[in-house]
Amino acid sequence: MTIKNTMRQIAKNAALAAKKLSRVTEAEKNKALSRMAEELEKNYKFLLNENSKDVVKAKKSGISNAMIERLTLKQATIEQMAKGIREVVALPDPVGKVISMWRRPNGLLVGRMRIPLGVIGIIYESRPNVTVDASALCLKAGNAVILRGGSESIKSNLSIASILQGVLRETSIPVNAIQVIPITDREAVSEMLKMEEYIDLIIPRGGEELIRAVVSQSRIPVIKHYKGVCHIFVDVSADIDMAVKICLNAKTQRPGVCNAMETLLVHQDIAAKFLPQAVNKLKKAGVVIRGCEKTKVILKGIEKAREDDWYAEYLDLILAVKVVDNIDEAIAHIEKYGSLHTESIITSDYTNSQRFLNEVNSSTVLVNASTRFSDGFELGLGAEIGISTTKLHAFGPMGLEELTTTKFIIYGNGQIRT
Amino acid sequence: MTIKNTMRQIAKNAALAAKKLSRVTEAEKNKALSRMAEELEKNYKFLLNENSKDVVKAKKSGISNAMIERLTLKQATIEQMAKGIREVVALPDPVGKVISMWRRPNGLLVGRMRIPLGVIGIIYESRPNVTVDASALCLKAGNAVILRGGSESIKSNLSIASILQGVLRETSIPVNAIQVIPITDREAVSEMLKMEEYIDLIIPRGGEELIRAVVSQSRIPVIKHYKGVCHIFVDVSADIDMAVKICLNAKTQRPGVCNAMETLLVHQDIAAKFLPQAVNKLKKAGVVIRGCEKTKVILKGIEKAREDDWYAEYLDLILAVKVVDNIDEAIAHIEKYGSLHTESIITSDYTNSQRFLNEVNSSTVLVNASTRFSDGFELGLGAEIGISTTKLHAFGPMGLEELTTTKFIIYGNGQIRT
Repeated sequence: MTIKNTMRQIAKNAALAAKKLSRVTEAEKNKALSRMAEELEKNYKFLLNENSKDVVKAKKSGISNAMIERLTLKQATIEQMAKGIREVVALPDPVGKVISMWRRPNGLLVGRMRIPLGVIGIIYESRPNVTVDASALCLKAGNAVILRGGSESIKSNLSIASILQGVLRETSIPVNAIQVIPITDREAVSEMLKMEEYIDLIIPRGGEELIRAVVSQSRIPVIKHYKGVCHIFVDVSADIDMAVKICLNAKTQRPGVCNAMETLLVHQDIAAKFLPQAVNKLKKAGVVIRGCEKTKVILKGIEKAREDDWYAEYLDLILAVKVVDNIDEAIAHIEKYGSLHTESIITSDYTNSQRFLNEVNSSTVLVNASTRFSDGFELGLGAEIGISTTKLHAFGPMGLEELTTTKFIIYGNGQIRT
Repeated sequence: MTIKNTMRQIAKNAALAAKKLSRVTEAEKNKALSRMAEELEKNYKFLLNENSKDVVKAKKSGISNAMIERLTLKQATIEQMAKGIREVVALPDPVGKVISMWRRPNGLLVGRMRIPLGVIGIIYESRPNVTVDASALCLKAGNAVILRGGSESIKSNLSIASILQGVLRETSIPVNAIQVIPITDREAVSEMLKMEEYIDLIIPRGGEELIRAVVSQSRIPVIKHYKGVCHIFVDVSADIDMAVKICLNAKTQRPGVCNAMETLLVHQDIAAKFLPQAVNKLKKAGVVIRGCEKTKVILKGIEKAREDDWYAEYLDLILAVKVVDNIDEAIAHIEKYGSLHTESIITSDYTNSQRFLNEVNSSTVLVNASTRFSDGFELGLGAEIGISTTKLHAFGPMGLEELTTTKFIIYGNGQIRT
């Protein structure tokens, strides 16, 4: 079979599975998910063995240590995967929920009921845990999933899929509800992205380059964020201790993720007091500062920030710092250089807190809290399939509900339109 | 300026306008909309005069009478447009509404606030009233709009835009909140569909061919429906009088629209009694019947339905009729041939009504009511910008809320992530 035909068959099988899956009860889905957690734990030796083949090959190919680390499974990682599935079991099933219902003057009772999206394609890089997480979330929301991981993790992903599908074979859920693409050739992705008649949504997870490649080729709607250039604005009225703690947390707690702070904006009338204290702590944590002219006056000997720095998603222990005249300049800076991801204001001023919340139209806007809370679990969505800076369908962290849509259901008793 | 540069300028202007527009109060938007209604009515002679130039040209070019009719404005049409705007004024502004809010264990207060989508591109055919309707809805939801009507209505659309923009000039709302593309060349649309950095959503309104052309070119998310192949299933337990009335209404009240019935499915055990009564009325209304073999046994002398007929959106006084064994066959038929638009069951059986509502995943599913209710006004959304059979973002009739997205707003008091 050609790659095109194989991909067509996978997509068709997924679409058929999705139709059946939309009618499966929550109890059946939860039972299958619980069994998957068990089977992953039971078969950890098989998984570690398959994974080690990927790791050996990856090391030979000379990929970076960071990627090797993300690729490598341990028994603890597998236990973590099983725990993740059990958390999804505990979440309420969104499918079938009627989110509102109203009576029309002619007596029609009109409601909106949540239904699955259908078939979801996930395109991601080396972490094999995404195979498990995404499968569990898509299944719980009643969607069939087609998974395309990095070529370096193919044996790991196929071995995970064989366990998950093995469980499905014991149930009434179609086995094609979860499929890992067995082809590592790039053509497989190109073909997948053309199958708009079978696939309803594509979620790419990975670096900006991967995501841009997916968007440029896809005829299917894509939900994504390219990058997270997250800002914290320390207002003149900020509690300095609080501001220092939040900045340290937002920059250093996990610098390589999309909700870490990349640019710090500081009100000019608090900069001389706040910046030395904050930067003292940040430097101790290994952070390199790149500042504007005014920042350089306060903090001697730091690097100068260039125009590029304001757009940069460092994903590293580097921070751009700019002193601004007021909240207007801070908001204007975010509007110009921001990525619509996450921004926070540290302030004790009521009006400015409201202005920031109302006027900054990023997907997550915070007052007096770390940007690191921009996360499905942290915001209480129960889980996260990704973060969207696409305004359509979902904006910000996406949980189970964002893997559904709603249909209108209408109860009549003979109404006709006049 | 090249077409590309002109389109780039229009899109940039719209994006700038959208940023300001997202902060305009409901009162300001309503005042501007009310003034627009007044000015359209005041300037009806100018509008009729500009429109007559389009009509003269269109007649010379030999386009169909139906299109000439859709293109032609009358004083009553203009009054209707003004009335439409006033209805939008009366609708609540969705922007700024916090749709839910919850407390996290760490004290964070997390909410979701409605915000405008940004810039919306509308691509449509000859009806100049779309220029007014779409402008009013987009403005009320805080979005900037770029309108691209058919080349045959260019003078009408530009004259309408000049009046709407004239009103905006008196207000704090940027004049580029509403722009009609002055270029009739197709290249203008192609360029527009590439400007994903400025335009957030494309809504095409028109025939399937127009919509397919837009989808195939667009890098911007498109919300659309290709066609409405709407079904009514008359179950064995249906009240026959009710079923006849609803079928007549769904097929003949306005046969040229997307929510008209195109295929009638009838349970085999009621077909001999129901079909002659229904078809008698339908034939009197001018409807031509194309039936399956079983239908032809009951209704002598009708045309035979071919495979193509089950996929057909006639938009005309033609109806495909199929006798089915039971509700399973009806649902399977809809799943195979349907367009995810609108389907209705006529039944007095509780279980079958629930099965149909739950198992048919079209955007609107009705029990004992006409498919013609699949409409934003009729369902109580207050207005309609279009109907979506794309499952992403909106599925079914779209009102003002569907022209917004939500951002997360978070009130903290110093929370950091651990």
